[in-house]
Amino acid sequence: MTDHHIALIPGDGIGAEVLPPAQQVLDAVGARHGFAFTYTSYDWSCERYVREGAMMPEDGLDQLRDKDAILLGAVGYPGVPDHVSLWGLLIPIRRSFRQYVNLRPIRVFEGVASPLRAAAAGEVDFVVVRENVEGEYSEIGGRLNRGFPEEMAVQESVFTRGGVTRVLDYAFELAAQRGRKLTSATKSNGIVHTLPFWDELVAERGAVHPQVAWDQEHIDALAAKFVLDPARFDVVVASNLFGDILSDLAAAVAGSIGIAPAANLNPEREFPSMFEPVHGSAPDIAGRGVANPLGAIWSAAMMLDHLGHPEAAKEVTDAIAAVLAKTDVRTPDLGGSATTTEFAEKLLELL
Amino acid sequence: MTDHHIALIPGDGIGAEVLPPAQQVLDAVGARHGFAFTYTSYDWSCERYVREGAMMPEDGLDQLRDKDAILLGAVGYPGVPDHVSLWGLLIPIRRSFRQYVNLRPIRVFEGVASPLRAAAAGEVDFVVVRENVEGEYSEIGGRLNRGFPEEMAVQESVFTRGGVTRVLDYAFELAAQRGRKLTSATKSNGIVHTLPFWDELVAERGAVHPQVAWDQEHIDALAAKFVLDPARFDVVVASNLFGDILSDLAAAVAGSIGIAPAANLNPEREFPSMFEPVHGSAPDIAGRGVANPLGAIWSAAMMLDHLGHPEAAKEVTDAIAAVLAKTDVRTPDLGGSATTTEFAEKLLELL
Ligand SMILES: CC(C)[C@H](C(=O)O)[C@@H](O)C(=O)O
Ligand SMILES: CC(C)[C@H](C(=O)O)[C@@H](O)C(=O)O
Repeated sequence: MTDHHIALIPGDGIGAEVLPPAQQVLDAVGARHGFAFTYTSYDWSCERYVREGAMMPEDGLDQLRDKDAILLGAVGYPGVPDHVSLWGLLIPIRRSFRQYVNLRPIRVFEGVASPLRAAAAGEVDFVVVRENVEGEYSEIGGRLNRGFPEEMAVQESVFTRGGVTRVLDYAFELAAQRGRKLTSATKSNGIVHTLPFWDELVAERGAVHPQVAWDQEHIDALAAKFVLDPARFDVVVASNLFGDILSDLAAAVAGSIGIAPAANLNPEREFPSMFEPVHGSAPDIAGRGVANPLGAIWSAAMMLDHLGHPEAAKEVTDAIAAVLAKTDVRTPDLGGSATTTEFAEKLLELL
Repeated sequence: MTDHHIALIPGDGIGAEVLPPAQQVLDAVGARHGFAFTYTSYDWSCERYVREGAMMPEDGLDQLRDKDAILLGAVGYPGVPDHVSLWGLLIPIRRSFRQYVNLRPIRVFEGVASPLRAAAAGEVDFVVVRENVEGEYSEIGGRLNRGFPEEMAVQESVFTRGGVTRVLDYAFELAAQRGRKLTSATKSNGIVHTLPFWDELVAERGAVHPQVAWDQEHIDALAAKFVLDPARFDVVVASNLFGDILSDLAAAVAGSIGIAPAANLNPEREFPSMFEPVHGSAPDIAGRGVANPLGAIWSAAMMLDHLGHPEAAKEVTDAIAAVLAKTDVRTPDLGGSATTTEFAEKLLELL
């Protein structure tokens, strides 16, 4: 019996409410398919920051290093500045473990109303592949003449050949397995150093993957097309910032941020990968037991896939589709009145 | 009789098809209100670039300098790289004439179907104020180790206190005249040098404009909210790149890029301001006489406002609303079968 050792980081707010249902689902499919999970839980959070002055202990990354994967709830809480919670936990994990692919699938499910008139269930089904460790989110930069009229801030975007190539190859390979269509997000008409380089590398990697038809769109036009014609996309590859914007936009187009999952992948498996719902810690509803568990459950399904259990992963996403299509049980964010537990139990029944 | 001297730059593709209707509208309201226009037309375009190696002559900017305003159709054509057409014409005009505000109003008109189920006509009516001369669109940066594994490209975003403050003040003053609500686009959780500076300046200018209630949203969440709840916005202020993305997204949400206008403003009137529809040169439909003239006409209305004729401007936007609400005459992009000329004539009737 394969045993997978998972690091659980519930984090803040509803993070702690959505991870237990995800664990139940993991244990259920594991039992059926003959593998099991052991979990180690970490209380790393804004609460810990307030108490001890750091989001995680100094050897935090070392504690995670030997795990098979990390399942994270959500971080961020009022009173603790965002850049503290993110740069103290989420971003160091992404970077130290070379999780250079951030993968965000988007689907319009039957039973979930997209805000778009024309986005029919089943038709919108694509993946955003986001570069996750370099690009516009760089620590290089600073401030000059603080407080004076001449004050300025600069920030360097850094795109490396190696860093861009590896995420493009991941995206092209994914496209080859899916619909053989890839769209690259750019803005090389306005941002004239980094993004022309990105475009060149897309063309270069495109030549190496001739089975995939690719095109590119400037980010402004692409954002508009996500709204006007989301069904036309299959795999969208984007830089760190553009991928962040496009994946949130796509989740909104699909009808609920509460369902969307994300995988922070180290495809080479040198280090653990991290799986997290796209939603935040939602302080407004935390503690009431009504958070949507599907984002965490779908993230757990992506983890199953990464750990080598694609059929088990598919059973979980099928159960997500079934609970949405066939029942009225759902949490308030989807227009229902079920609790987190009731919603998760209905899904477990259908699994 | 006031006489306004306008520089016309039709540019490429449908640019030349949408400016004549805009001129007709300008002349018609001018005649009624007692002012007139003289026009000087410039053939600066990709066609000129192909013929003469430059988008505009060397003294191009000097030829524009003494005009009261610039009305531009569209630039860009297949075969001429975007960065050539833009950095050879549009961007130098914006920068040399300190057009540091890019103003883009968004309205869902009666008679135009928004792709959003919930975007009712009349409810969505906001303005994106985009910083237009610095920020992420900077010429600072370059490439190292070209062609080798160590290759990299860097690009510096530059935010200055003066550059950010002036556009924020413009946005706060506009908000004070409108709904007294301002939303600032940021991403200070991920982009940790320039955008925290932007946020600080927003707070600083907010204190100087206490009559305006302001908030801020990270660009990813904000893009999602443009789709989930566009009616909640009044004035949105954003950096160069974020404003570019948000304004295209907003135009898509409103139901047609063919209607959306943009004003590139030098609020101090040291230099001419430039008015241009948001749509591009649309090579696919160019020459067929079916381009939507409303983007250019609405841009002309913004020019009227800037030139000190707010009532005339309002008559034009009212005529746009009327032709859309009360008639079926419209160009193919809006689901009709009228030509550019027929559509413009119907609007002139209602004016
Ligand atoms: C063409 C491009 C450089 C330009 C911009 O991003 O400024 C355009 O998208 C616009 O919004 O006017
Ligand atoms: C919180 C923030 C820094 C983060 C990001 O932009 O990477 C988040 O938006 C995400 O997408 O995971």
